[in-house]
Amino acid sequence: MWNVSARRGWARAGARAGARAGARGYCTLSHLDEAGRARMVDVGHKRVTERAAAAECYLEVGAALLELLRGARGPKGDALCVAQVAGVLGAKRAADLIPLCHALPLSVARVRIALPPPGAAPRVRLTCEVRARARTGVEMEALSGCAVAALTLYDMCKAVDKRMTITGLRVLRKTGGASGDWPPQGTTPPHET
Amino acid sequence: MWNVSARRGWARAGARAGARAGARGYCTLSHLDEAGRARMVDVGHKRVTERAAAAECYLEVGAALLELLRGARGPKGDALCVAQVAGVLGAKRAADLIPLCHALPLSVARVRIALPPPGAAPRVRLTCEVRARARTGVEMEALSGCAVAALTLYDMCKAVDKRMTITGLRVLRKTGGASGDWPPQGTTPPHET
Amino acid sequence: MWNVSARRGWARAGARAGARAGARGYCTLSHLDEAGRARMVDVGHKRVTERAAAAECYLEVGAALLELLRGARGPKGDALCVAQVAGVLGAKRAADLIPLCHALPLSVARVRIALPPPGAAPRVRLTCEVRARARTGVEMEALSGCAVAALTLYDMCKAVDKRMTITGLRVLRKTGGASGDWPPQGTTPPHET
Amino acid sequence: MWNVSARRGWARAGARAGARAGARGYCTLSHLDEAGRARMVDVGHKRVTERAAAAECYLEVGAALLELLRGARGPKGDALCVAQVAGVLGAKRAADLIPLCHALPLSVARVRIALPPPGAAPRVRLTCEVRARARTGVEMEALSGCAVAALTLYDMCKAVDKRMTITGLRVLRKTGGASGDWPPQGTTPPHET
Amino acid sequence: MWNVSARRGWARAGARAGARAGARGYCTLSHLDEAGRARMVDVGHKRVTERAAAAECYLEVGAALLELLRGARGPKGDALCVAQVAGVLGAKRAADLIPLCHALPLSVARVRIALPPPGAAPRVRLTCEVRARARTGVEMEALSGCAVAALTLYDMCKAVDKRMTITGLRVLRKTGGASGDWPPQGTTPPHET
Amino acid sequence: MWNVSARRGWARAGARAGARAGARGYCTLSHLDEAGRARMVDVGHKRVTERAAAAECYLEVGAALLELLRGARGPKGDALCVAQVAGVLGAKRAADLIPLCHALPLSVARVRIALPPPGAAPRVRLTCEVRARARTGVEMEALSGCAVAALTLYDMCKAVDKRMTITGLRVLRKTGGASGDWPPQGTTPPHET
Repeated sequence: MWNVSARRGWARAGARAGARAGARGYCTLSHLDEAGRARMVDVGHKRVTERAAAAECYLEVGAALLELLRGARGPKGDALCVAQVAGVLGAKRAADLIPLCHALPLSVARVRIALPPPGAAPRVRLTCEVRARARTGVEMEALSGCAVAALTLYDMCKAVDKRMTITGLRVLRKTGGASGDWPPQGTTPPHET
Repeated sequence: MWNVSARRGWARAGARAGARAGARGYCTLSHLDEAGRARMVDVGHKRVTERAAAAECYLEVGAALLELLRGARGPKGDALCVAQVAGVLGAKRAADLIPLCHALPLSVARVRIALPPPGAAPRVRLTCEVRARARTGVEMEALSGCAVAALTLYDMCKAVDKRMTITGLRVLRKTGGASGDWPPQGTTPPHET
Repeated sequence: MWNVSARRGWARAGARAGARAGARGYCTLSHLDEAGRARMVDVGHKRVTERAAAAECYLEVGAALLELLRGARGPKGDALCVAQVAGVLGAKRAADLIPLCHALPLSVARVRIALPPPGAAPRVRLTCEVRARARTGVEMEALSGCAVAALTLYDMCKAVDKRMTITGLRVLRKTGGASGDWPPQGTTPPHET
Repeated sequence: MWNVSARRGWARAGARAGARAGARGYCTLSHLDEAGRARMVDVGHKRVTERAAAAECYLEVGAALLELLRGARGPKGDALCVAQVAGVLGAKRAADLIPLCHALPLSVARVRIALPPPGAAPRVRLTCEVRARARTGVEMEALSGCAVAALTLYDMCKAVDKRMTITGLRVLRKTGGASGDWPPQGTTPPHET
Repeated sequence: MWNVSARRGWARAGARAGARAGARGYCTLSHLDEAGRARMVDVGHKRVTERAAAAECYLEVGAALLELLRGARGPKGDALCVAQVAGVLGAKRAADLIPLCHALPLSVARVRIALPPPGAAPRVRLTCEVRARARTGVEMEALSGCAVAALTLYDMCKAVDKRMTITGLRVLRKTGGASGDWPPQGTTPPHET
Repeated sequence: MWNVSARRGWARAGARAGARAGARGYCTLSHLDEAGRARMVDVGHKRVTERAAAAECYLEVGAALLELLRGARGPKGDALCVAQVAGVLGAKRAADLIPLCHALPLSVARVRIALPPPGAAPRVRLTCEVRARARTGVEMEALSGCAVAALTLYDMCKAVDKRMTITGLRVLRKTGGASGDWPPQGTTPPHET
């Protein structure tokens, strides 16, 4: 990039502190520059490839609420539908929520919500898959989709259960980048052991 | 509300299924009407009172990343600052993300980020407090602030650590509603045992 | 308002043309000033009262699509649910879409979707009701809710039916303003004859 | 897509109901999956082509308001200009309003507003044309542009005329998709007979 | 606010550095806490009063462009109208753009644009006035309205003139806060000498 | 584009006035059509190339505030960080703020903030650089990034200094369009003399 700040004598804010910081090595965080300043990563030189990512999280609920949700599932499913819709919008808005995240035209974003089998711990599983033909990965979109869907489900249930927790929000798989797929093919995702 | 759908012969979508559903009791989910249709709760009759809520979550990270974040904390702290800023914006945007959530003019939203003491599990703690003079509570704003801050921190760290997990996103305290404070005064929040 | 434009000699853009225009009377459009320039109406002096509005529109569809929607209504109703959710978000975003519309904290926004009785014309009815305690009316919010819900339903159905039309988008009722309720009590709304 | 929901024993919400639904055939709505759940259509495999769409709608107004608008047209035209600007923004925001709609980088969006010839029915015609080089069509953008422009014009005129109706919102033409142009070349659009 | 970060042993990021910082006095920046962390100011305890603010800026243009704008002013004025509309939307969106700014329901936002008298320096003057009944001032809304209007005018003119500059963006007047009006009554605003 | 407005007898709003206007030549403003109506420029025929732009502006502050900002720069820098983050989000949102501006997927947006050397005039310099592979330039994104960053810094400092001014907001350089780089290679930007 151009050195537009380089007017003689102007102190790039934090420059000296940054020099010290560099010596301590945190510039390996690609979103911090050599002076410790936050920045977007430039993806202009990366190739457009097919990118995909999947994320998941859980909404832990009480047994009584789970029973209500099983009922809601049957004839109408609206509570789950509202959460799905919000999750898709959340995935599409990732770059508007996350400051250093790139806006990407998504090919698809899908959110699924599943209730636990009888006898399992009372928690709802939310997953989000995203695809795009883009210069950078889409895991933030998948994570945002899960998070917003879970918050929306929380919102609809909070009058019944005040102790819900959203937990286990993480990336399951990711393909298509120059750094290779993750987790590497042939290995089991750490989260599914 | 007016019965604007009541044109003779027009089937309110899902009405019969809803009748069955009502018998099964899930209309105690206040965000579903008697037919199981999702809806906003009408807060027009509630009093304007001082509302407050606090939420927290954790970003579980690897030891190497934690070390980098400790370095970032020292001279500049930009990684944490970016996450804080995004969290405040996320709290202000809760009603735009969560479909059935009411837009409220917030008095304040604050996000704090803390690193664990030496020897503790490697995870970053994010908290968000929100206040408003409003007719309904602000826990969704506090949760959204935490979630967006954590996603933003995840985004900046994902090149270093692909196994991060956001966990334990929940409400810590909430005051000011007709239903009383939560958790009731004198009790310990379940999350702080 | 202050006369901040009144620097001597500076031409308020369109001032002379506006003088002519005023003579032609269109300054009775409250959103145009005396020079014909668009402007928000100042509502600061109006009282906060309980405001409500209801709007409706129709999505005219082919008979085959209507049959599909009747099927969708039964077990899941997701197509209608997605449209409802989008409509609620649309109502909340009215002031972001409509430049001279005031942002109001809504007490509630509800969207309902109804399929026609057998033998009636093949069209889906969408209604939206909005309430707020505010200084100005909420009919734009109700109209926006209907419009966005109908567009969303259109989007989901467009692969099946390319000749759909959204029609009859209008205000049904409105209460709570200084200018009295509309339509006046005791009269029938013109749209329901 | 990956089968991320396929944890043994977890009930995909609505799966059994969906099986029944599939038998009833509404899975031909491409925005519903085999279980009746709403979803975005994956456009990743489609080719990038030049896409265009045009839509129209009408704002039906009273004769007195039409006269005011004719006056506004002459010297300043601001009422119409505000509606045009809002329409362009509305077209650009279609994917933010319509949950399952893809965000596309538009090449152009144009909104035009025309007053009726003397003696014709008192209604304002709004049209919107959109172009993009994209993997999917732009008719939702064109429809959104019309709808938001019409709502904006409604907003500015509502103090004068409370019986306005937005009507006839539909697609006029669409080109560039794999499914061919619509209406097929050589035929007259159904709306222009 | 609650001390939600006070888990024993957890380091509030930047705490020690903050202690040093406090000694250096910059905590008089009300948007930084005692540790130098950015934060929203809590306005919950302030009274709701009538607030108003006016701001201005200039778009410096070349003489040829000014001539074009004078022409645009006459019959249509659309270039100026587009900028006005964008400015009003920009004022309403201030809290979405400026992280630590409070969302306020505005009573009115107005943008005016004026061309210079013959012989004066070739620059366009943009002013924005905002009013709200709120707990905090509206100068950021007025400044945002000016800035977005000027950027929009720049955008429309940039093909003709690449050397435009937006300059002199500042608050002219502000009334209604506990700290009194600004500039104090009886004095001349510093910008109007 | 299609002539969708060409229904016989319908008056394209402003057509006759426009004819007069055309004679006066302002249709060389590419964002106005031959009738003086604002419009987006169609960029569909332009080639996708690497585009870059840099912009700058200044926040003029009092000496006391500058001293506070120098202190803030040292240990934490949060005030500057908040402004940077807001600037990046502002650059990404340019097309949502500026009606006739095209939405582009940015490769990178970076905001830098620098304090003046001792003895220089008390003003903060903000720069923003943006890159994209796109069909049109990114100078509006760079300008928006500067403007929003400066407004954010203003917001955080306004309790200390009410006389701040944002000034000198302009494009420094721009490359990658069919019209060649600006300023032409080998020349000095006019702003850096």
